[in-house]
Parts: sequence; structure tokens; C-alpha cells
Amino acid sequence: MAVFAGKITGNASRICKDVINGKSNNGGDAMAYGYNGRILKVNLTEGKIDEERPDERIYRLYMGGSAFSLYYLLKEMPAGVDPLGPENRLVFMSSVISGAPIAGLTRYTVAARSPLTGAFGEAEAGGFWGPELKMAGFDGIVFEGRSPKPVYLWIHDGEAELRDASHLWGKDTGEVQDRIREELGDQRVRVAQCGPAGEKLVRYACILNELKHANGRTGMGAVMGAKNLRAVAVRGTKKLAFADPEKVRQIAKKVVELIPQFPMARNFKKFGTPVFVMPLQESGILPTRNFRAGRFEGARAISGETMTETILEATKGCYSCAIHCKRVVKVEGKYAARPEYGGPEYETLASLGSFCGIDNLEAIAHGNEMCNRWGLDTISTGVCIAFAMECMEKGILSRDDTDGMDLRFGNVDAMLEMIRKIAFREGFGDLLAQGVREAARKIGRGAEAYAMHIKGQELPMHDPRGKKGLVLSYAASPTGADHIEAPHDTAFLSETPMLYECNPAGVVEPIDALDLSPKKIRHFVHTQQIWNFFNSLGICNFAAAPYSALTLPLLTDAVRAITGWNTSLYELMELGERTITMARMFNVREGLSRKDDYLPDRLFEPLEEGTPAEKRITREEFDKGLRLYYEALGWDPENGVPTPGRLSYLGLDWLIL
Amino acid sequence: MAVFAGKITGNASRICKDVINGKSNNGGDAMAYGYNGRILKVNLTEGKIDEERPDERIYRLYMGGSAFSLYYLLKEMPAGVDPLGPENRLVFMSSVISGAPIAGLTRYTVAARSPLTGAFGEAEAGGFWGPELKMAGFDGIVFEGRSPKPVYLWIHDGEAELRDASHLWGKDTGEVQDRIREELGDQRVRVAQCGPAGEKLVRYACILNELKHANGRTGMGAVMGAKNLRAVAVRGTKKLAFADPEKVRQIAKKVVELIPQFPMARNFKKFGTPVFVMPLQESGILPTRNFRAGRFEGARAISGETMTETILEATKGCYSCAIHCKRVVKVEGKYAARPEYGGPEYETLASLGSFCGIDNLEAIAHGNEMCNRWGLDTISTGVCIAFAMECMEKGILSRDDTDGMDLRFGNVDAMLEMIRKIAFREGFGDLLAQGVREAARKIGRGAEAYAMHIKGQELPMHDPRGKKGLVLSYAASPTGADHIEAPHDTAFLSETPMLYECNPAGVVEPIDALDLSPKKIRHFVHTQQIWNFFNSLGICNFAAAPYSALTLPLLTDAVRAITGWNTSLYELMELGERTITMARMFNVREGLSRKDDYLPDRLFEPLEEGTPAEKRITREEFDKGLRLYYEALGWDPENGVPTPGRLSYLGLDWLIL
Repeated sequence: MAVFAGKITGNASRICKDVINGKSNNGGDAMAYGYNGRILKVNLTEGKIDEERPDERIYRLYMGGSAFSLYYLLKEMPAGVDPLGPENRLVFMSSVISGAPIAGLTRYTVAARSPLTGAFGEAEAGGFWGPELKMAGFDGIVFEGRSPKPVYLWIHDGEAELRDASHLWGKDTGEVQDRIREELGDQRVRVAQCGPAGEKLVRYACILNELKHANGRTGMGAVMGAKNLRAVAVRGTKKLAFADPEKVRQIAKKVVELIPQFPMARNFKKFGTPVFVMPLQESGILPTRNFRAGRFEGARAISGETMTETILEATKGCYSCAIHCKRVVKVEGKYAARPEYGGPEYETLASLGSFCGIDNLEAIAHGNEMCNRWGLDTISTGVCIAFAMECMEKGILSRDDTDGMDLRFGNVDAMLEMIRKIAFREGFGDLLAQGVREAARKIGRGAEAYAMHIKGQELPMHDPRGKKGLVLSYAASPTGADHIEAPHDTAFLSETPMLYECNPAGVVEPIDALDLSPKKIRHFVHTQQIWNFFNSLGICNFAAAPYSALTLPLLTDAVRAITGWNTSLYELMELGERTITMARMFNVREGLSRKDDYLPDRLFEPLEEGTPAEKRITREEFDKGLRLYYEALGWDPENGVPTPGRLSYLGLDWLIL
Repeated sequence: MAVFAGKITGNASRICKDVINGKSNNGGDAMAYGYNGRILKVNLTEGKIDEERPDERIYRLYMGGSAFSLYYLLKEMPAGVDPLGPENRLVFMSSVISGAPIAGLTRYTVAARSPLTGAFGEAEAGGFWGPELKMAGFDGIVFEGRSPKPVYLWIHDGEAELRDASHLWGKDTGEVQDRIREELGDQRVRVAQCGPAGEKLVRYACILNELKHANGRTGMGAVMGAKNLRAVAVRGTKKLAFADPEKVRQIAKKVVELIPQFPMARNFKKFGTPVFVMPLQESGILPTRNFRAGRFEGARAISGETMTETILEATKGCYSCAIHCKRVVKVEGKYAARPEYGGPEYETLASLGSFCGIDNLEAIAHGNEMCNRWGLDTISTGVCIAFAMECMEKGILSRDDTDGMDLRFGNVDAMLEMIRKIAFREGFGDLLAQGVREAARKIGRGAEAYAMHIKGQELPMHDPRGKKGLVLSYAASPTGADHIEAPHDTAFLSETPMLYECNPAGVVEPIDALDLSPKKIRHFVHTQQIWNFFNSLGICNFAAAPYSALTLPLLTDAVRAITGWNTSLYELMELGERTITMARMFNVREGLSRKDDYLPDRLFEPLEEGTPAEKRITREEFDKGLRLYYEALGWDPENGVPTPGRLSYLGLDWLIL
């Protein structure tokens, strides 16, 4: 009798493997296995376009967005390249699930070494551009080199070509979009582009698609500009294939049905992200006058409620999304703002508003249009201007330094004029165009104390004195201060709704927003993993629970139905950790370490109007929290370097130094 | 307008929270939320019985088995207690899913500080006892103290009492079971008990339920004996409540239908675990003569195939399991073996067979019955005897030491006589009853070189020279050498079927059984997490994929349907890591460290018949692999202590030292 049991062969083998791989009907997950995708490789120096079809295992490890971008950046690029040089890679990356007609799966990443921070640079944007790229046949694009003359890339239904953009150089984003659509003879072409600010290498120049959806942060627009790449225009008419189309349809339908039942989703439709102005004000953490205060006397005037009552023209959604959180405003007169440039998000209302002491909503809307017209990140722009305002107030800068401008808090016209000067690097604008870290260094005379940045990136409009998860989120974020690195455990959100979000991951202990103890570490790192896999899959956190209907189980089902992979929430959570860890390794390679994980001194101080003891951040809790955070991720607690063993666990042994 | 968006209140709030918690129909997971359970607390010194109803969050963090046992051991017991003293806790622990009528969810844990190793002691057993405990109304039992006289605990339908066991003391397990059933007037009472070996504190005495299902390892029977606790008898007639009974029924039905399609499941029915004898022999890693050889000339005679053709009387399954891997043998004559004591598993065929150079299947079956009759772990028993045999061969021991016995390899009757002497601690048996580490220490004269143990526990019947995942599994196992710490990446299992098992966790890269590189670390730790959550949920790894139909998605569905929790594979994988880490912390508290994670020197040497270079384990790859393993789990790479941050991540901040 020559039986052996271990060998699985023949037809029975087929059945078993099908069952185990999730192909046959073992839990309602009947679907085909397999994901094929294409990545465009564009060498701008040589004007050459290739394509790559990564192995399915590569797709499964990295999936899209941040992680897949990091895969290319780390694999193809040595450390130490000039962010504005031809060696820097610039990656546009959608994901394996983007383009499915389910609300919230729309976002794509642009990544490179950041000219603002020298660290990992990355920003995501919504809209329709990501799905359009997929329908044009590609998951992502990796640019290298520098074009000898201005070009744009035109991608359409599986084909791609570089086209001359000399005639577009220096033009506003609106004009460029019009011209490209005109010359391609298709008004439905989706254009992602840097603006004149990117051409001029403003260190926080952004990329905009359709004039209003921004890959805002870390200066990705400057990288485009440095490559002489003005735009990427895409048009796709291919129908995307899903492993289980019926299941995809069911999930999409369910999400649409559930959205109106979510109060936050309803509020996003009504007020957009500006809905956050008033509760932050009431909690005393609305960033005001360069983080000196947490309450702004003009808050009501710049709130979502006021916007809805006054300048709001329409609401818009991203691809397949019924939430419609996007604002379209219209202002006529002195502070005209045209609907095609959208309208200010919460971040912009605060950065150009309360942060600069400005309560003129129309002027902020106008400023928002300027930033979108020329391609500036509104957050960094506002923080740079507020910095200059405080320096003037403190006597560190005078009108002699500012081209005669009276840059005091609250000066609307000076703020608007500064936006223009930054975008075109005129006079004093040239200094602020280098980012607040570099500007403060050049000014000297104690200016650094007023430069609100981490790793060189200007702080977003959220004050950790009141939601302490942000302490870690800001300090450790690989891209410098960033507000979508992890969810904000906002005290004013009742009954810690974030818990509902991470309940399926087993995190069920309520946690206080002001906690920074080991209990917070558990909660923070889990939710950070969630938001990081969102960033790698292109998932919008406003469309996800607890704000809206996309719960973690539904998301997992969606990934299964779209890709056909026998995946699980485990795999997605690990993707989140992989994303965090790859970004950390990128920065380790660039020489960043523990010393670069800090908060500006000001955040350790009380607010002008006083900060209750429990809201204050102590240096001791900061140091302790950061160390626990490193350890939680399996990093060396002294220097924050991921260990070879944890890299191995994550399938990243190729990154062991 | 006083709108605030963040606050989720009223009826809409209800809907949202239901959706997010998984109550309403957002992905086919409609079910109620909630798990209630009871733990019996028995103080044997005082004869007092209480019950505890742990908070649901405690249930959700620990779930059952290993992890829940460790929760009680670590919470209630200080470090350094005498394993055989009254302070040692002895925990019997089922799980939140045990008792559901799905094949493979049957196992329960017995845990305490081990008298064999001084480290975490734990062993699982199948059969019907665990589900019976649940149907009697309890999830687990925590014993403390020492009864002034022999007792047994009788649990029946929500009640429990301690009863006199003086008349049972010293009796064979079969007689004890008969007497208890008789005096309780119910033949369906399930009895778990130590045997005379446990009473006599043999350091590797086991616990048996229904005479044949053993909590075999780490001497849990001795802990029972030391507590004067001879048995735990249970009878339950309650119907268990499940959150989604219809879904439970569907899963159960699906598993039953799928089992016959799995070749390994069919083979388990036909040959039981003895099916492994021949393929291990053919791979040259059948443990033979104290790990000197990997091929045994008598392998065929002791194989599953031979057993099925000769002494097999019947096959049996555990509660709700259609696989029927359990053997029932019948031998008459000199080496009589009665069916009520079951039949030898693979481990026993090897430990009393090839490991002692014995090819007499009937004698092994007889030895198996002796071990079950008196309550000895067959693995440790065989390893101790083989150790003595080698010491005799090497001249370290003579007949003067062994009560005149001719303990040479292959001497059937000496082997059987030794079992009796060990069980009753007679003469030379008293020395071997202390375990091979202690026996070798006492013998001296170089005997330690032949003592095959790790942390004091005798090695199971698997040779890492041929499946190198076992290198880490053995060395780092908290209970000492253990074969169910992590799956064996067996070279002879074609197409690395383990991959199919962990595919839903995203581990899809094929891995060679002889690999011990960073790639193996990824695979090993993930599969170790899987087997460790099996140990905490009481899941049988033979019922699970790749051997049989219980895939990870099905298991996750089962936990959801049974408990009503909005859980995921993520939470289960984390439970696995939590289990590993708690056990490590138990050992850290007891003073164990890096030095206790080792392999016996012999395993670094070639086998007698030679070992191909690629199968040999080098000290360098061992040291490197172990360090990577520590790091992978977020432990200090130098000393293997879990870091405060990783403990925090796992919700174990209460264990930070």
C-alpha cells in the first residue's frame, strides 16, 4: 500500500485548493482569482514610454496609492537624489480597487522625494482623475528624468504620448485645461496639472485635477515643474472588469442606500468639510493666528454654516460618490471667485482665515481660487503668510523686508497679495515660496520660533492641544505635519465614534481624546493602520465609517469582489502597517531619524486664552508616547528604525539596510 | 443655525452605530451583539466555589484557551510560585466558540506553571469534554490552593460541587471513570482526570478525558495531583445559544459536505495521524533512536497503513467532527490493548517506537494503553526511555543503575516495564519521572548530551533537520519543545499547502521548507499566529485548512455567527500574537530569557546516515533566525522581551514590567 496523505494531487487537489483560495463557494465568496494591471513608465529625458505589468504578488503586497508608490521610489531610486533633479521619480498611483462604482474608492496618490521636506513626499486627491486613469487602462505612472522642453502626457484608452506644452507654460490652470481639452477635441479629458507655482518650483506647489481637486501637500507640483511636465491628461472609455461584478453592484447599492442614514454624511453634503469650523471653535482648538489661540472671534463668519447661507453655489461629489462634500462657491465683485475652481475646504478656511486672523469669507474664497489657479497648497500658503505676520508683529520683519506690505494679522488684501507673490516668487514671496522652515532660517533673528512646521512641512489646521492622537500623528508622519496620517480622536465627537470604525479590528476599549497613555497607543496605531491602508487603496476617509457607510467589513468585501483575491481585513491592516513602514524606511534612507520627529515648541505652550492642564502636552508624555509608538510598530525605540525582523514579517526584507 | 455634525444622536445615531457594529444588514452580517459567559473559581484549600462573569471586553481580548488561561495565570498569580504548591493556578479553559456544532471547534486548554519546565505550562485536548463543559454552563475553571484530601469536581448544568475522591486515589483511569459515572448515576458524564502518575507528581503526567484524549504536555497531570484533585466530571444538557443560529447551521453543513473532498481529511479518517510515519521516513526525518537517525528500519511495521490493516478496531471523532482521525485499536495476548483507551497517535508510534528503536506495533499499542491508564505523556515518556537507552549504550548507565533492566534500543519489554516504573516512580523510574533534563543533571557523566529537551520539556517526534520552521517553533516555544506551536512546513507536503492556509492573511509567496531566511520569518510568524489563535479558540488544526475544510474565512464567519461580534480575521490574527506574547511575558516573569531559547546540540549535527548540507542547521542561521523572529514580534532582539509599546498595541499594557 503506497499511500501518502500529504500529497494533494489530481481532481481532489483542484477542489481543495479552490476552496482554500476562496474560489468555490465556501462562505459566499465565489469569485475568480486574479488581478492584472499595467503601470506606465515614462522617461521624460528621453521621451520614452514603456509599460510594466507587475506580478500579481507585487500588486497584492502593495495594492496602490502610498505603498505602491513607495515600492517604485524605493526600488528605482537611490537615496539622496535632488528632489528637483531628473533622478527623482514622480509617481501617480491609483489602486486595484479604484474605478469600481462604489462611493469613496476614488483617490489617487502622487509621490516623490519632497522638495519641501527632503523626506517622503506624497499627497492624495479625489475627483474623477484616478478612475479615469484606470478606465484608460493604467493603474499608475512612474516618471523619471526631465523633459528638455515643457510637455504634457496624454493617456487615452491604453495609449500614451508626450505632447508639447510650451504654449501652456506660465498659464493659469483654467486656461491650460481649456487648451488641452480643445486641442485633444474632447471636453471630457481629465487634466491633472501643476500651475505656474509648480513651474516656478514653489516648494509647496500642488497638483490639481479639474482645477479643484488637489494633491496638495509636500510640493508635488514643484516636482512636476522641475521635470518640465505641466500636465497629465487622461481619457478612458474602457469598462473595468471586476472579479464579481454582481457583488460589486450590491455593495455599491448598499452604500448609496446607507449614506443618508449617517448624520456626518448628511452634514458633509450640507456644509462640506467647513462644518468643522464651529465645533473646533467651541472646543477651543480652531487654529488661530499661527497657533497662538484656539478661538477666533470671526469663526462664525468663516464657518460652513455661513458659507452655505451665502456664497455656496452648488455641491459636488467625486466619482460614484453621493456624499457630495465638495463645495462650489461663487463670488462677484472685488473678491470674485469662479465656480470652476470649486470652493474652500475647512483647511483653507482656517489657513487663510483664522490662522491669518481673517474673517472675510469672500476674500478667503478668492484666495482659494488664486491657489487653485496657480497651483499652491492652501495650507502651506496660509501658514507661511501667518508666519510672516507674526514676524512683523514681533518686529523681526519690517516693511523693508516685505516689499512695503503691511503684513499684520487680519489684513485681507496683504494676505491675497502675498499669495500672488508666492506663486510667482516675486520679492518677499520668493522667500516664503521656500517654505516656512527655510524662510525662518534665512530671516534668522529668532524667526524660527514662529515657523510652524515639522520636517519642513507646514502644520495643517488641527491643534493637538485637545486631540492628542495628533501629537504622534504630526510628529511621526513621514511626510511632515499631516492631517490624514491617522484619524483625529476628536473630543467633540461624542461616544468616540472612531471606536465603531475599529471595532472589527478588535479595538473596543473607549479612549479619551486627551489620553496619550499606552491605551492610546493601541487605539492610535490601529487607526493609523486603517488610514494608511486607505491611502494605499485610495479610500476616502469621509466616505468610510464612522462618517459614512463604508465600514471595514464592507471595504474588505469590496476588495474581494473587485480583485478576486481571497483577502481579509488582516491583509488590509497589514498593508496599512506596510505603508507606514515603507515610508519610514524611505526617510531612514534619507538620513532622517528620531530627531526629526518633534512638535514645534509652541504646541507645548498654553494657548493665548489659556489651556486647561489636561489639554496641555508635556515633553515627558511626548517622549514617552513616541517611544511606545516606535515599539508598537516593531521599530528600534531609540532611533525609530524598523527592525530587520519586522521588515521581514511585512514582506519587506528587500528593504533591510 | 446651531448645527453640529459630529454629534451622532437620536434615531439616526442608532442606525449608524448598528451599521458600524455589524448589527444591521451591511454585508450579510446581521446578528445580535453580545457574549456572556461564566468562569468557575474553585479554591481547593477552602473547598469554596465561586463564579465570575468576565466583562465582554475581556472575553473579546482573550476569547478562550491559551490566552484566557494566561489572563488568569498572569493576573492572579505572582511569579515564582512552586508549580506543585497550592499557589499555582490550574486553569481549564474552553472558548467562546467551543460547543458550536461545527467540526473542529472542540478543544480546550489546561494551563498552569509547569512542574516540568518552570515556564508556562499548557496542553490542549479534544474529545467531548470541552463542549460538555460549555453545555454545563461554564467556559472555564480556575483552581487555586490544595485540597486537604483527594477530591473531584462535579459540574452539571450550572452547578458545581467538590466531592470526595479518597476512594479513587491510586486507581487506574478506567476504574476511576467507571466509579464516578456509577456514583453520579449517569454514564454520559465526561471525566477529565490525572492518573496515578499525576498523583505521584511525575513531572510529565498528563490529563486524560474519557481515557484517551490527552492534555498531554508540560505535566498538567502533576499539578492536578499536587492539588489533590483527581478529576473534573462534567455533564451539561443546556442548549447553547448562538448569535446567528442559522448561519452556524449553514457553516456546519458546509464543512461536513466539504470534508470528504480534502485528501488529507480522507487520509486522517483512514489512517489517523499515524499516516505521517511513512512520509517522514521517506523524507529521512522520522525521529529514530534519540534523534540519532532519521530513518528507521522498522518504520513500515509501525505505520498507519500497517495499523489500519492489523490492529485497528474502529475510528472515532471528536464532538461534531466527521473527520474521525482518532484510532481505536484492539490487541489481545501478551501486549493486550483495550479499545476504551483509544489507540496510538503518530507521536506515540514514534516516541515509543522508532525513537526507542522498537518496531512492534502491538507492544506500542500496549504501551499507549499503559500511559493512558496511568496518566503519562507518551512523548516525554518515550524520550526519557530512549535517553536512558542511549546512556546505557554509551556506558553512562549500567544495569546497576536501572534496577537490572537491559535498557537497550529495541528492547520491547524493558520499554514497557520502564513505563510502569515511571508511572509509579519505582526505582530507576523515579529518576526518569523527573524529566530528562533533571535526570541527566542527576546522572552527570556527560548524560546531558543525550537529553533531548528544550526548557526541560522533551522534544516531540519531529526533526527540524528537514523542516526548518521547527527550529524557531521548538526553540522559542514558551512551553519548551512543542509541535503545535506553529505549522510544520513539511518538505514532503507538495506545493507548500500551508500557503493556501495563510493566503487570506496575504502571505502568498511560496517558501521552501529548508529556508530560514527573512522570507521564512514572514511565513513562520504568520502561521504561528494562526496556530496560536487556534489554541486560544480551541480549534483543531487537523480540521482546518489546508488539511480540511475550515478555512480562515469560514472560521472568521463562524466566530461572528457564534458570538455576534463584528470581528474579522485581523482580530483573530492579533489574538494569535497576543497569545504568543502573553506566554512570553509569563516566562519573562519567571526569569527565562534568550538563553532558554535553544536547540539540543545534537540537532546541529548530521544524522547517523548523513544529512545533506541544505538540511543541516547551522548555529549562525539559528542565531540570525531567532533574532529576526524576536524583532518580527516587536520584542527586544537581544533578550526577547516584548517591548512596552508592542504590549500596549496588543491591549496588554497591564503586563508592562
